[in-house]
Amino acid sequence: MPVDRLTQAQRLDAEDPLAAFRDEFVIDEPDLVYFDGNSLGRLPRATRSRLRTAVDQEWGVDLVRGWDRWIGLAREVGDLLAGAVLEASPGEVTLGDSTSVNLYKLAVAACDARPGRRVILTDDDNFPTDRYVLEGVAAARSMTLRVLPSDPDIGVTLASVREALDDDVALVSLSHVAYRSGAIADLAGITAAAHAAGALVLWDLCHSAGAVPVPLRSAGVDLAVGCTYKHLNAGPGAPSFLYVRQSLQTSLRQPIWGWFGQQDQFAMGPAYDPAPSVDRFLVGTPPVLGGYAALCGVQLSAAAGIDRIFAKGTALGDFAVDLYDEWLTPHGFALASPRSGRGAHVTLHHPAAWQISQALRDASVIPDYRTPDRLRLGFAPLYTRFVDVYEGFDRLRTIMEAESWRRFSANRSRVT
Amino acid sequence: MPVDRLTQAQRLDAEDPLAAFRDEFVIDEPDLVYFDGNSLGRLPRATRSRLRTAVDQEWGVDLVRGWDRWIGLAREVGDLLAGAVLEASPGEVTLGDSTSVNLYKLAVAACDARPGRRVILTDDDNFPTDRYVLEGVAAARSMTLRVLPSDPDIGVTLASVREALDDDVALVSLSHVAYRSGAIADLAGITAAAHAAGALVLWDLCHSAGAVPVPLRSAGVDLAVGCTYKHLNAGPGAPSFLYVRQSLQTSLRQPIWGWFGQQDQFAMGPAYDPAPSVDRFLVGTPPVLGGYAALCGVQLSAAAGIDRIFAKGTALGDFAVDLYDEWLTPHGFALASPRSGRGAHVTLHHPAAWQISQALRDASVIPDYRTPDRLRLGFAPLYTRFVDVYEGFDRLRTIMEAESWRRFSANRSRVT
Repeated sequence: MPVDRLTQAQRLDAEDPLAAFRDEFVIDEPDLVYFDGNSLGRLPRATRSRLRTAVDQEWGVDLVRGWDRWIGLAREVGDLLAGAVLEASPGEVTLGDSTSVNLYKLAVAACDARPGRRVILTDDDNFPTDRYVLEGVAAARSMTLRVLPSDPDIGVTLASVREALDDDVALVSLSHVAYRSGAIADLAGITAAAHAAGALVLWDLCHSAGAVPVPLRSAGVDLAVGCTYKHLNAGPGAPSFLYVRQSLQTSLRQPIWGWFGQQDQFAMGPAYDPAPSVDRFLVGTPPVLGGYAALCGVQLSAAAGIDRIFAKGTALGDFAVDLYDEWLTPHGFALASPRSGRGAHVTLHHPAAWQISQALRDASVIPDYRTPDRLRLGFAPLYTRFVDVYEGFDRLRTIMEAESWRRFSANRSRVT
Repeated sequence: MPVDRLTQAQRLDAEDPLAAFRDEFVIDEPDLVYFDGNSLGRLPRATRSRLRTAVDQEWGVDLVRGWDRWIGLAREVGDLLAGAVLEASPGEVTLGDSTSVNLYKLAVAACDARPGRRVILTDDDNFPTDRYVLEGVAAARSMTLRVLPSDPDIGVTLASVREALDDDVALVSLSHVAYRSGAIADLAGITAAAHAAGALVLWDLCHSAGAVPVPLRSAGVDLAVGCTYKHLNAGPGAPSFLYVRQSLQTSLRQPIWGWFGQQDQFAMGPAYDPAPSVDRFLVGTPPVLGGYAALCGVQLSAAAGIDRIFAKGTALGDFAVDLYDEWLTPHGFALASPRSGRGAHVTLHHPAAWQISQALRDASVIPDYRTPDRLRLGFAPLYTRFVDVYEGFDRLRTIMEAESWRRFSANRSRVT
């Protein structure tokens, strides 16, 4: 007798220890199945009201006096991230700039710390902005960007990194969770291998922060960056965080010498004298609204607990893979994610992925499309229910059975 | 017979063509005299409601679909700035990152465009972050940062720049309006002198954008950056804008190769291929809330008209200088600003400037303090009335006559 998938989903929801967190989010369109929380997380209720206070009271009334409070936001968010979301220590994480800018700062700092070494190592499955930023850093220093070929459905492997490492590698920079497949890289193994070769490591945590545990301390990670607008639910374009291992902080120098990195900022002295802390990796005046949104978002993840979040994300994905096996394989789909060791999204190949993504939107399911043939389905653990996965896959099955995706143009005009 | 200064102020307000713009701002503390709009501008009413829509509807309900709208914000704000606030053309201005990061990007691009030249020229009156960023750029390239001594009460002069220029100078980078004195530099003359020596110019417009006309086109300026949270009223930490002259755009390359600078961003191709436009100076995912706040703020300045704004800012400052002459010279103050050719702030020296700034706050007047002995008084033209200047100076006179500032500690604990 086949499993009743709806009953199964309802049972899983009833047993979900994080079920109540869904009520912490604004969900105004109940029919919508949102499978893109790993691109832009939903709006927390607390954030909505905190931003109103920040705008109406702090900016509107307190005016410039608000800086007495705002100046501490980057450190406050950083310490909360360090303690509750990443496995790091207070004073190792801060907030500011975009992920790309933070990646640039830390990549340059790392290469400077390994003079004479001529190679930056990454893989072709790394997110585009990472590859471009590293390409630019390498070009400016007449270094080589060594780009490992990785299977985009499996992600980077320790074996391939080991093989590519030699004593000319200054920096290894990879994504912890792959943006296409969701594969979790062997963060500890790769970090150890890089260290054994004398290189520093810089991890991109965009798809892992708030979704999977990130053992920065036990793995001895040197450097990391990540965004807050995916699983940390801080809103569109919210600032990025960066991590620098405590013991490296005073020996590393980043290249953008802004006044927020200065030791005694308001002395406004004649020469740059970087703070002896993670603050030296800051640059200019930080975005306050984004800082508050990051604070509220991180507080939610901290309250839920990263181990419970990871367990639920894995279970949601496993359930989705079961539905794929049962419902979608006859319709030309192929799994583009690992069956185990994933972040909180599952990706499927289909030659008509673009048109199917449009048909899904038309049916109030929001997936993500990734060129050329990938349908990426994110299951943000804090607010996605098992019945949402059921419902989204049921609509997808209906679209495939009715072939209603054929009504949509193959012309890819969408910007995101 | 002495002038009745209050009557004069009331008459000037009655004749002010921009008087109605004050109603466009949230002003919830009517007794407060706000003389720091050049550090953080007030909250426009339109911004308050636009941010609610952006949060509640666009993020909360539209979710990732919001990017169809958000992706165009940087260009929209840039074009409005170009046409209405700066004298530039559509496609020459965009929005993103902090002023410090933008300064870094453009300074590196400029030095790359003048290979072989070994000097960056600035002055010691430039804002600290500018000096530090340029110091960092010079250090990384084994170039020299040549720092002109300027009188901080007068600002940089064309004569001193001319004298410091030679054919080894790659880049001249200065502030258009000095952050301490408010002096307006000779933007056209210095730009022409730099060009005559074969150098590029990079102007910091933080204290001039939205306060004084900025003739980028007629002066032939190459590069500029500026913030939006001062006279453009976009809120704490709102993103910075940058300007690159059209004819330079495709020949310049900035060093941070992020995906928002990529020509075909969502193709996610293997190599960086920068957009053939001002977009190549963008880097990572832009802050959406800050982008909307910048849009609303710039719209207000555009509606008021930069020439009228400048005329009013000058008149407010002239009135303040008159009150200083009449009321404050007996109390140990000295003018730290030029009597003509100022942006929208006036600065005074006083040995007890710190304590006086605390006494003013206590009397509901918000000035800015600048180390070691400066009291900086900003008169944001869009919402500051002549009676506000009268009232603020009257309270300052009272503090000086009663010597009530002596109650405050000389210990400088304030962060901003």
